[in-house]
Amino acid sequence: MAQKPSIAKGTRDFTPEEVTKRNYIVNTIKKYFEVFGFLPIETPSFENSETLMGKYGDEGDRLIFKILNSGDFLSKVNDELFAKKDANILTPKISEKALRYDLTVPFARYVVMHQNEIDLPFKRYQIQPVWRADRPQKGRFREFYQCDADVVGSTSLWQEVEFVQLYDTVFNSLGLKNVTIKINNRKILSGIAEVIGAKDKLIDFTVALDKLDKIGEDGVKKEMLEKGISKEAIEKVQPLFAFDGANAEKLKSLKSLLSKSDEGTKGVEELEFILHAIDAIGLKGAVLELDVTLARGLNYYTGAIFEVAAPAEVKMGSIGGGGRYDDLTGIFGLKDVSGVGISFGLDRIYLVLEELGLFPGSVSENTKVLFLNFGDKEALYCLKAITKLREAGIKAELYPDNAKMKKQMTYANKRNVPYVVLAGSKEIDEATFTLKSMNSGTQDTVSFQKLLEAVQH
Amino acid sequence: MAQKPSIAKGTRDFTPEEVTKRNYIVNTIKKYFEVFGFLPIETPSFENSETLMGKYGDEGDRLIFKILNSGDFLSKVNDELFAKKDANILTPKISEKALRYDLTVPFARYVVMHQNEIDLPFKRYQIQPVWRADRPQKGRFREFYQCDADVVGSTSLWQEVEFVQLYDTVFNSLGLKNVTIKINNRKILSGIAEVIGAKDKLIDFTVALDKLDKIGEDGVKKEMLEKGISKEAIEKVQPLFAFDGANAEKLKSLKSLLSKSDEGTKGVEELEFILHAIDAIGLKGAVLELDVTLARGLNYYTGAIFEVAAPAEVKMGSIGGGGRYDDLTGIFGLKDVSGVGISFGLDRIYLVLEELGLFPGSVSENTKVLFLNFGDKEALYCLKAITKLREAGIKAELYPDNAKMKKQMTYANKRNVPYVVLAGSKEIDEATFTLKSMNSGTQDTVSFQKLLEAVQH
Repeated sequence: MAQKPSIAKGTRDFTPEEVTKRNYIVNTIKKYFEVFGFLPIETPSFENSETLMGKYGDEGDRLIFKILNSGDFLSKVNDELFAKKDANILTPKISEKALRYDLTVPFARYVVMHQNEIDLPFKRYQIQPVWRADRPQKGRFREFYQCDADVVGSTSLWQEVEFVQLYDTVFNSLGLKNVTIKINNRKILSGIAEVIGAKDKLIDFTVALDKLDKIGEDGVKKEMLEKGISKEAIEKVQPLFAFDGANAEKLKSLKSLLSKSDEGTKGVEELEFILHAIDAIGLKGAVLELDVTLARGLNYYTGAIFEVAAPAEVKMGSIGGGGRYDDLTGIFGLKDVSGVGISFGLDRIYLVLEELGLFPGSVSENTKVLFLNFGDKEALYCLKAITKLREAGIKAELYPDNAKMKKQMTYANKRNVPYVVLAGSKEIDEATFTLKSMNSGTQDTVSFQKLLEAVQH
Repeated sequence: MAQKPSIAKGTRDFTPEEVTKRNYIVNTIKKYFEVFGFLPIETPSFENSETLMGKYGDEGDRLIFKILNSGDFLSKVNDELFAKKDANILTPKISEKALRYDLTVPFARYVVMHQNEIDLPFKRYQIQPVWRADRPQKGRFREFYQCDADVVGSTSLWQEVEFVQLYDTVFNSLGLKNVTIKINNRKILSGIAEVIGAKDKLIDFTVALDKLDKIGEDGVKKEMLEKGISKEAIEKVQPLFAFDGANAEKLKSLKSLLSKSDEGTKGVEELEFILHAIDAIGLKGAVLELDVTLARGLNYYTGAIFEVAAPAEVKMGSIGGGGRYDDLTGIFGLKDVSGVGISFGLDRIYLVLEELGLFPGSVSENTKVLFLNFGDKEALYCLKAITKLREAGIKAELYPDNAKMKKQMTYANKRNVPYVVLAGSKEIDEATFTLKSMNSGTQDTVSFQKLLEAVQH
């Protein structure tokens, strides 16, 4: 009895149209990664478990897919331990490998293992799938691609400047104008924590502040008080409630707010450098916006923090993010290697382009010319012409079977083939082809040369 | 204490140079897959175990990587069963997913699950990694890419003709002339089995026959006798020992040899059709050779069998293979869907191109122009020019730090950057750039326009 096939939960098949559209995005990202001087690397899909475990917190450890050891994986497990029937204890005994959870930890491993052949600064990009045992839900998958570019081995803020340009260039090239590149700095957040007198309240603070648009100043202050932030602390950061206007004004108000915090002042200076440079060079379509509520990856980043918001008319979370982390490779024993990087959210960018109708029509164009099949003699005649078209780089196909005309035409229609060629004995005798345009419906009998010219556009 | 990082056994990191060279091969294959009318699909890295298990024989089942269920995977295992401590029994209870072992079974699943949206014939290509828990050894990895093109839903032999052309076109485009495309037909092998009177001796027979070049007719016959093939049977296939010369002669001798076997005769006719068509159209660089000892995937293929051998001067196994299988999707309940497909062996093609020095020099070219960094003012001046170069699609980079000149030049040298730009206050005042060619060593002070023209080649 044949089994009814199914697909694993949280995973996806991609149809030709979907692959083609995804590749359009990936190829655009890749092109500009390279134009900006990043080099591609690839790391294996699975790593030794100790490379990944403990790097993403407890929740991360749980979400890492573990691979069962091959062969008789129980033979080395001692009976006493086995008898405990405890999944947490048993796992490391029967599983030594795990699927990649992100591209950053494998990259850190790569840098450490290849340190003798790498010239720092090392600018690498990596576009590969990652896997997470998350509960699948709309827009969240167990297998998805990450598209990362990072520089390691340089603390220069020019990197941050270039990453802003890179975001701008890629999204502009995808036709996605008016994305907002939000920028903040971890050191500014530390400065605010100093000012409000409690590092542990920083997340509550930024979460509340982020609601300013929705619940107003009073609402935000109320929430802050409820979270245990003192009235005095809130007063000290009063300027943040009028935190509006151009980046220059925001910088000015941050400067005075954080004047007594060395770290905060450092963060403002770093931000200022980046904003000034971008002002001087200009952006093509994106808006760079200082957003002091931006706090992603708080424990991870140490300097600049980036997040990209889709154009306002699309309801969508962030379509990219990144930042600077001062110690990428320390976990693997290589100290003092600073890194900064950004990531593009492929799945969400896809949804945004789809919603805004921004995929070019040519993206899903496949076969340009279909030659109908009227029998072996005719097929051979056609295949000779097809061979020459293909040499000219034109996507051409022979309908493989001498099927009914209607069936062959249906195939052409369903595949959206713009040109169909018919060649019977009359055409063979005259060394011609009957070329039918599926768009206009017109039909002409032409030489091969004319055929080539007609379909070459 | 930081851990010393390692990479999982049988897996590989790919350096920028390796990725770039691999992409050169993959992009060439992809280009011609598309020119020949194949559409891309992608399937998930892991499948439900029942989709994969039992499809590749016992050995295959053992080599499939199983993924441990997430969470408390032992809670649903009953105590009695658990107490048996038997890996074979426990595996299906604690693992429901497995990593893709090849691209063919997932493709069959895809066709069945998407049958309502697919128009047959369906020409798909798929280039993705697969995983096998093989013992790693030289040239054999636990993660490697397959590059497959298949057509399902047509029994037309024109497909086989086009696959021969596709192999020829791709290898020719890679500069790999003189590959040999070996072709045989499963039905011819069945015919021979009929003639020698024993299906179960067919593999022994073809293995022995394959040694004709090395051990001569007497040696081969001796081996056949040892394997239990009768003297009478060997006499009946005597023509195979003089099986030389052009394909036409071989066809003629096969025709008479297999005249009494219907299946064998059918196989000869199919081969004849393909060989004649290819004769009429011609090949660019490859040689198509009828090889009656070709028996790959004996239990799998039902019609044509292909295998591609690298040019004779390179010692290397096959660099591609494929064939026709009459019932691809039957395992998942969709009957009578014939398929035919070929595969390119990426890793081996890489080694062959490397050995023959066939990677174009431009393949590993990365950054075209490096701008040295003499301070923030100079860097901003440079980054404006870099931004314009990048808009013209030129790979340009700013050295991120104001480091010692020697360090920056070393970076340029190690990265093989052909042009270096120096811009200090003099250049800024004059709105010029000093352009140094790293190949010739010459140095000129030029306008941006001249700079652009110089590096654009």
